Amino acid sequence: MKDMLGRDEAVSVQQALRLILENLSSDSLPEEKVRLEDSYGRVLSKDVVSPEDLPDFSRSTVDGFAVCSSDTFGATEQSPSYLNVSYEILMGEEPDFELRQGEAAKIATGGMLPQGADSVLMLEHAQFVDEKIIEVQRSVAPGENVIRKAEDVGKGELVLGKGHRLRPQDVAVLSGIGLTEVFVFKKPKVSIISTGDEIVPAGAPLKPGFVRDMNSYSLAGLVLREGGIPLVKGIFRDDYEVIQDVVRQSLGDSEMVLITGGSSVGVKDMTERIISRLGKVLFHSVSMKPGKPMIAGVVENKPVFGLPGHPRAVVVCFEVFVRAALRLIAGMKSEKFRITLKARLTKSIHSASGRQEHISVVLDEKNGELWATPLLGKSGLISTLVKADGTITIPQDSIGIEKGELVEVKLF
Amino acid sequence: MKDMLGRDEAVSVQQALRLILENLSSDSLPEEKVRLEDSYGRVLSKDVVSPEDLPDFSRSTVDGFAVCSSDTFGATEQSPSYLNVSYEILMGEEPDFELRQGEAAKIATGGMLPQGADSVLMLEHAQFVDEKIIEVQRSVAPGENVIRKAEDVGKGELVLGKGHRLRPQDVAVLSGIGLTEVFVFKKPKVSIISTGDEIVPAGAPLKPGFVRDMNSYSLAGLVLREGGIPLVKGIFRDDYEVIQDVVRQSLGDSEMVLITGGSSVGVKDMTERIISRLGKVLFHSVSMKPGKPMIAGVVENKPVFGLPGHPRAVVVCFEVFVRAALRLIAGMKSEKFRITLKARLTKSIHSASGRQEHISVVLDEKNGELWATPLLGKSGLISTLVKADGTITIPQDSIGIEKGELVEVKLF
Repeated sequence: MKDMLGRDEAVSVQQALRLILENLSSDSLPEEKVRLEDSYGRVLSKDVVSPEDLPDFSRSTVDGFAVCSSDTFGATEQSPSYLNVSYEILMGEEPDFELRQGEAAKIATGGMLPQGADSVLMLEHAQFVDEKIIEVQRSVAPGENVIRKAEDVGKGELVLGKGHRLRPQDVAVLSGIGLTEVFVFKKPKVSIISTGDEIVPAGAPLKPGFVRDMNSYSLAGLVLREGGIPLVKGIFRDDYEVIQDVVRQSLGDSEMVLITGGSSVGVKDMTERIISRLGKVLFHSVSMKPGKPMIAGVVENKPVFGLPGHPRAVVVCFEVFVRAALRLIAGMKSEKFRITLKARLTKSIHSASGRQEHISVVLDEKNGELWATPLLGKSGLISTLVKADGTITIPQDSIGIEKGELVEVKLF
Repeated sequence: MKDMLGRDEAVSVQQALRLILENLSSDSLPEEKVRLEDSYGRVLSKDVVSPEDLPDFSRSTVDGFAVCSSDTFGATEQSPSYLNVSYEILMGEEPDFELRQGEAAKIATGGMLPQGADSVLMLEHAQFVDEKIIEVQRSVAPGENVIRKAEDVGKGELVLGKGHRLRPQDVAVLSGIGLTEVFVFKKPKVSIISTGDEIVPAGAPLKPGFVRDMNSYSLAGLVLREGGIPLVKGIFRDDYEVIQDVVRQSLGDSEMVLITGGSSVGVKDMTERIISRLGKVLFHSVSMKPGKPMIAGVVENKPVFGLPGHPRAVVVCFEVFVRAALRLIAGMKSEKFRITLKARLTKSIHSASGRQEHISVVLDEKNGELWATPLLGKSGLISTLVKADGTITIPQDSIGIEKGELVEVKLF
């Protein structure tokens, strides 16, 4: 489809996202075995089924007395029950007796319940009458203050599913069921190629007309945050053969290629020609601001993105498109929900109709409510992103948002 | 203050937090210089002031023609202006001419504006009449499609403040102003000591009455997530001398000490005795569920926490107290806001009055709204945390929350 000026028409954000996700497969990365201490943030490549019960025995969750609950039924301050404290159970010890009616065994938090006991009376609910007898002033329900054998995790139970990204508590449960290693997908490697005849590295002297490379650094950080490995390839001349060579080489050592800088028409066309020669172009342009001149393609089942050169556009394109592709490649289950905060706009925003617009905002709390102040800088300014706490999105068919309206803020 | 049973009274969550933060200092960590590529997530130890202008020259943000805006004033489709395209500016090139009235210079995105030009006419708003003359059908405002010299960041401007934790876009701007290294605080080291005669490591055979260490793994992951370095010291016997020795040794090689497992009265008392012998106990118990038997102290200006042994209580105590202390020690500015999601409760929760209660919840999206389902498991269960997406807090003076009410969910 061409627009009135003879250029290819932009696809909507939703169409673009669908095209990307439909053309990628999630099961491409090999797995590796890592030690638990190295598994934080990694993605499970297999379901984890528990090899043992957790706990392996019925445990007390308080300091007190293991009892037969029926001995305490009906006990009150006015009409207490009395029990003989016949035993004391030490930590890490297996009781070698069976508790009988009318008996209690002193037990600490984590202690193993003896045969015959089904609950634990808390220390503060018992009064010693003498060294061997306690008065019970309230009844204890069966199972009270006890974690039964296998109550937390049962042997053979699915603990965590393939595609889950491990959080601290997830690693803890893996240790709890006796694992010391776990199978995860290898981290996806992402090549980052910066193009532009006017781009120099941070350390170089700045000649007139030149600017320093910023996009390699924002992209590398974003890739790291999603659990990938950035391969920063450097800065390359706006030359078809040069760029094609580094793209080819990058396809050999990474699972995704990001080319940034091609925001002028000439460079964008070059990126497009390279992708279509090596593979398939998915779209040339997207109805989004900033980020319109973005290109996406697939070469050898690997996504290749041509991102605009503007620093803010690069970050928005990553958040909206590259992130979803990277998570898919990494083997991650799709997100249940995206983290957003609700805030009220401090001033009205008008939007050019026909494009999804992303606006950076600063958040402030006033009278217990969050307020979002739009930073309406030019899209080329990186300082807008540095001052911002997050972004809001104005839908493609909206003409703007009024002051005071509630908006959803995606946080950085 | 003692309660009716002669034990020390629990402090409120707010009191506990204040006691911790008042007794710690934020400027204790030495700084180090790191390369930009290693600076993601690190905390600035100095304000960053820009050594140069960004950009260093007035740049075009589009492909088009550099013009004197006054030449276009009043131009419309009906009454266009005409300009002579006298020059073409190449990327990374300093124009050696001054643009005069009636002239235009072809320029690409990122190109340097010549003397005399104050704006850029977009390519699509110009029509070539012949090879050297364009027709202008709309007026261009002064500064339109241009980022002026120093508009993004000015030389001498404060770019990022001390205490800021670096995000991808922040590292990008540091590169943009020509820095290759940055001063950050060293990462705080946190010792993690697991105690309990019944605790064995994940890899060991499980004898009856024993359970595996889980808290070392959840705590190490939480420390990593906040940018600290966990030093996992191992599992130690419930013995005064043994624990005191490892606490002393940990104070020598880390900035914070976490002792976990002391949830039974005996072990809690022991931890308390060790802290008060080596330093000062801040509180012995907090009005929170789970997490009540938590102890906090300060030894040699370093926080020492005695955390309960229950896996869920450990995570809640970390999120509520340890995290705040760790961020302070790490030199981080206080958080502007804590990330929470609003959701509706799927069922009513009743709360034991007099304690702040933390409940794990699963989140689901239904009809565009988030719903939180409480997981009302026993606090000793780690599986509750593994199934959960986050937690909600019931205030100390509340008796519960009704089904359908809006709650704030802190995400893991």
